Amino acid sequence: MATEMPIEVLNVPTPSFLVDIDKLERNARAMQDRCKHLGIQLRPHTKTHKTIEAADILCGGQKRCIAVSTLAEADLYSDNGFDDILFAFVITENKIVRCRQLHNKIGAFHVMLDSKVGYEALEKSPTGNGKPWSVYIEIDVKYHRTGVSWQSDDIVNLASLISGNNGMTFRGLYCHNGDTYNYIGSEAIKEAGRESTEILMKVKQRLLQHSINCGVVCMGSTPSCSHPDESMSLLEEFSPGNYVFYDVMQKNIGSCSMDDIAGRVATRVISQNVDHNILIIDCGFLAISKDGMENNLPKSPWIIQDNPNLRLVGMSQELGKVTTVEGKVDFAKYPIGTMLFIYPYHSCATAAMHPVYYVHSGDKIMAMWRPIRGW
Amino acid sequence: MATEMPIEVLNVPTPSFLVDIDKLERNARAMQDRCKHLGIQLRPHTKTHKTIEAADILCGGQKRCIAVSTLAEADLYSDNGFDDILFAFVITENKIVRCRQLHNKIGAFHVMLDSKVGYEALEKSPTGNGKPWSVYIEIDVKYHRTGVSWQSDDIVNLASLISGNNGMTFRGLYCHNGDTYNYIGSEAIKEAGRESTEILMKVKQRLLQHSINCGVVCMGSTPSCSHPDESMSLLEEFSPGNYVFYDVMQKNIGSCSMDDIAGRVATRVISQNVDHNILIIDCGFLAISKDGMENNLPKSPWIIQDNPNLRLVGMSQELGKVTTVEGKVDFAKYPIGTMLFIYPYHSCATAAMHPVYYVHSGDKIMAMWRPIRGW
Repeated sequence: MATEMPIEVLNVPTPSFLVDIDKLERNARAMQDRCKHLGIQLRPHTKTHKTIEAADILCGGQKRCIAVSTLAEADLYSDNGFDDILFAFVITENKIVRCRQLHNKIGAFHVMLDSKVGYEALEKSPTGNGKPWSVYIEIDVKYHRTGVSWQSDDIVNLASLISGNNGMTFRGLYCHNGDTYNYIGSEAIKEAGRESTEILMKVKQRLLQHSINCGVVCMGSTPSCSHPDESMSLLEEFSPGNYVFYDVMQKNIGSCSMDDIAGRVATRVISQNVDHNILIIDCGFLAISKDGMENNLPKSPWIIQDNPNLRLVGMSQELGKVTTVEGKVDFAKYPIGTMLFIYPYHSCATAAMHPVYYVHSGDKIMAMWRPIRGW
Repeated sequence: MATEMPIEVLNVPTPSFLVDIDKLERNARAMQDRCKHLGIQLRPHTKTHKTIEAADILCGGQKRCIAVSTLAEADLYSDNGFDDILFAFVITENKIVRCRQLHNKIGAFHVMLDSKVGYEALEKSPTGNGKPWSVYIEIDVKYHRTGVSWQSDDIVNLASLISGNNGMTFRGLYCHNGDTYNYIGSEAIKEAGRESTEILMKVKQRLLQHSINCGVVCMGSTPSCSHPDESMSLLEEFSPGNYVFYDVMQKNIGSCSMDDIAGRVATRVISQNVDHNILIIDCGFLAISKDGMENNLPKSPWIIQDNPNLRLVGMSQELGKVTTVEGKVDFAKYPIGTMLFIYPYHSCATAAMHPVYYVHSGDKIMAMWRPIRGW
């Protein structure tokens, strides 16, 4: 693997993942400002970038209060001076040993559950250091993935169990407001955020009626947190992740503009197939991921910068096929060696394919970041 | 990341990529036997597994004669005692510096090209060690990706240029016979292999008519090499890759049986969504990849071992949704914590998502292999 830092964007090996540091910092500041305005604690989710450097920027240099999707991320951050980490993934027994290590290692480590089985796994494995498990309950508002349905009595039952257990503290509610991905435009996103907030407040109220104090209500999802409804000031924490880079999917939803997208894949034309009207690039599915392709064919989900008439229509492991939306490819305009820049459809998926991010300001490469991977 | 080696398959952290070493060794031996029978040199492609250990087995302990898809693979193998490496990816100028390092480092390093631009890039950058570049020309038989069309005069022109250049040796022709992925069953695969061989022999003949000797004709693709037509003994090299693990796609094509598939993803049920008839597993697209999903919906392309009535119908980054083909999920049968094993649709794509492979014989974990990634 190339280890020397190239000087300019045009010198990076291809394929590469490029990170525009100025856009990333702008996205970070905008989210910090939004949270400040609403009086919300920002808990950036690290799943999109998985680097020390980006987490540090998103946390405004505080190195505390993050959410992670894997124990590998939790290990990375706790090894590098970060504290107050939420493992935002429903706990199961097989992950308890490593959670206990993390709990003993840093000041504040939080787990999440959505079932009595998860509760019993924690109950069977006390932290062993006198400091109780800090537990969020995940609520399913309308995304229908993990989480206890907001209408279910199980929420009260679980919260009662946690609150009544000396080895645990009931920290509050967590909701990945993923349903907002189905809305288009800032007004619709706000309305969805308002509805979810209202539901979460009902749940909080229901718990209060059972004398259970819900200290923190945390809501994720980049669309909601990019266009928060004013009512979301009733929440305590935001945990968006994707906004670090944004992407074409978020642009389509209306969370961001094209100009906010901070991540791109650099690739080069390596062959011309004139007979089949195709440019071959050195960006296959190992460089950009096929996530999003299943819902976006025959129209390609990716955007090739400054080339609206080109689209990436197929990929094998290391090769991509680029053709025109209309007419013939102007092969003279795209000789072998031409560099193209592709905006990811889903930056979480694309970034995860790269062992190195090439971080640039304008045309200059400023740094190489190495994300953690695995579990 | 978990670093200690678990003792049994049922103890692996989830998600994990499991490699059945007995099946892998059987697949390796079968391909070696096939090549021996036909009198062909096997040049295993490493793109599927990208490990030292599997390459060593596929080479029958010889540590020589492999094909790679990335320079990162070439670096790994040349650093670990492997020799005679073909970088089976059309060369462009930006990759020349690293190719020259590899050329100077090992006894035999081969490059591949499909254009005059590639030729000129090599011409401009002599190897500098008195040993000429060893060059394959990639031929497009009917896959229509990279490669010079087999009907094009460019083949003769390129071969003449290479043969006439003191700094280069014309090694021969390379063909990824990817078209065979469109055939079903061993007879159709054989017929496709026979046709491609016939075409490649015509090209070889055409070169001979121009007094150009084509030393080696190399053909890839796991289907062709798993069911070779006898006429393929006219070739000099086979360079299949996927057969190391095989997968559901190869099973569907007819290259292998279910029992030959040596790679699986281990995952656990982490939540039950009874209202929506869904089991949630800790296998999202970062653990299995979405490759193949675009052509296989609404039917899921993956197979959940021993559970024909279950199918993986959706994924987010770290979560998978499993539901039934017919009827309701038997939630009592799949409590939280239940381990499931998923056969990959495309093992090249799935394996690439994992920093560690858990290698097992029967139920016992024998080793942890760490593949190279990146470019």
